[in-house]
Amino acid sequence: MLTGGRPAGVMEAACAGAKSVPGSLTIGILPTGPDGPVSAHVDVAVFTGVGEARDVINVLSSDVVVACGVEGPGTASEVALALKLARPTVLLAAAPAASAFFRTIAGPGMLHEVQTPESVIELIEQELGIPRWRAV
Amino acid sequence: MLTGGRPAGVMEAACAGAKSVPGSLTIGILPTGPDGPVSAHVDVAVFTGVGEARDVINVLSSDVVVACGVEGPGTASEVALALKLARPTVLLAAAPAASAFFRTIAGPGMLHEVQTPESVIELIEQELGIPRWRAV
Amino acid sequence: MLTGGRPAGVMEAACAGAKSVPGSLTIGILPTGPDGPVSAHVDVAVFTGVGEARDVINVLSSDVVVACGVEGPGTASEVALALKLARPTVLLAAAPAASAFFRTIAGPGMLHEVQTPESVIELIEQELGIPRWRAV
Amino acid sequence: MLTGGRPAGVMEAACAGAKSVPGSLTIGILPTGPDGPVSAHVDVAVFTGVGEARDVINVLSSDVVVACGVEGPGTASEVALALKLARPTVLLAAAPAASAFFRTIAGPGMLHEVQTPESVIELIEQELGIPRWRAV
Repeated sequence: MLTGGRPAGVMEAACAGAKSVPGSLTIGILPTGPDGPVSAHVDVAVFTGVGEARDVINVLSSDVVVACGVEGPGTASEVALALKLARPTVLLAAAPAASAFFRTIAGPGMLHEVQTPESVIELIEQELGIPRWRAV
Repeated sequence: MLTGGRPAGVMEAACAGAKSVPGSLTIGILPTGPDGPVSAHVDVAVFTGVGEARDVINVLSSDVVVACGVEGPGTASEVALALKLARPTVLLAAAPAASAFFRTIAGPGMLHEVQTPESVIELIEQELGIPRWRAV
Repeated sequence: MLTGGRPAGVMEAACAGAKSVPGSLTIGILPTGPDGPVSAHVDVAVFTGVGEARDVINVLSSDVVVACGVEGPGTASEVALALKLARPTVLLAAAPAASAFFRTIAGPGMLHEVQTPESVIELIEQELGIPRWRAV
Repeated sequence: MLTGGRPAGVMEAACAGAKSVPGSLTIGILPTGPDGPVSAHVDVAVFTGVGEARDVINVLSSDVVVACGVEGPGTASEVALALKLARPTVLLAAAPAASAFFRTIAGPGMLHEVQTPESVIELIEQELGIPRWRAV
């Protein structure tokens, strides 16, 4: 599971959740160099040093992009970027205005909407056919 | 005036318009290296080679960000990025769903909406107090 | 072990070697998006899309930088970047002119020179005190 | 004339020199966002926010790369990058070890060496055929 890797908010919570599963691997794409803060739940820290431009790396490196909430411009930018780069995108519990807007700009079959974390996993595995596990 | 610099769409039209004014300076922040296409109306071509990540450079380098239309995910990503990075942002003739969404994520006083190019100029000069000309 | 991740040259050989060791983890920092080629020996592919700028990410994300040969400008640029960013740097079998030059620009204790791959591992573990294995 | 744009060292001196010529245009490719320092002699400030990765932008955007001195790893990295990206490169008053090394990694006709600023201008205009002025 890949996130922005900082010890804050959804990134931190998602990494902690993933590491509660034995055998999981968490990757953090940090905006800073190695002097910046990293979540303790990140296994592989990639220090980009490119600031906000690292969002593009997150999207390009993901099989599917999951946005939790979409309540601020940061998440909105990532969702729009994912749709621009034609990655399958899942909105988890998005606000009505976000949902309505992203439907107007998404390509066919790109945007998915669910209300619970369990539904995200089910969607990814069953509908999108992306395996939860990949051997390394 | 700074754009993405490619010979296409709004970028090309905006550069051509700017160069119809004597003494103007147009800057293009290209996603490619010097082997990629550049609008003939760009005075200073900055070849970034960083692809989509160049959108961050566009936003950081602008005093005010103007989005024409907001009809696709590319423009949506730039608008969200501008709001995230706290740049004054102007939506020109945005669709209702875009307008409604961006109002929910914009910080106080950051988002402006107008319907004509003339109103953009007026807003920038009078309301935002950003001079149209800067001596070089 | 982190490399540039492409299926070519030292990157490919280093990844193949690392994957011959059970339990190893190879990370590739690719210059392209997911449409570009990746070594079959890379476990975690990070698609940056930023072209040559990804060299900075490689250096920032490494505990120690090992350069094999230094026979071309690409490797030379990475070695100079590693010295600039103050990462411990190991030259493996460098040509005399490269060795002589990098000694003139390296900070105290930053540059190490060895002649065999075995010596690289020994140096990293014993002299630099960087563990060969890190639990994930 | 394009530099790294910060108010320090060769960047600052080169920008100040260029601006002493009426009609000149100086471009600064900054590593920071607009909160970072900029030379007062920069006309067009491009805020990249990508840190050291901006060196690639400098090289890609230049018709010819001129290195003054090559006394540290930062300049060495830029020279190597310029040679890798096949830009005409001029070393001005380089140290003997730098000169000797870069000759071993430069492609045919790419590397030029001179001892005075006047010779740089002469080389660029007469030997490389790059005009000193370009109308904007």
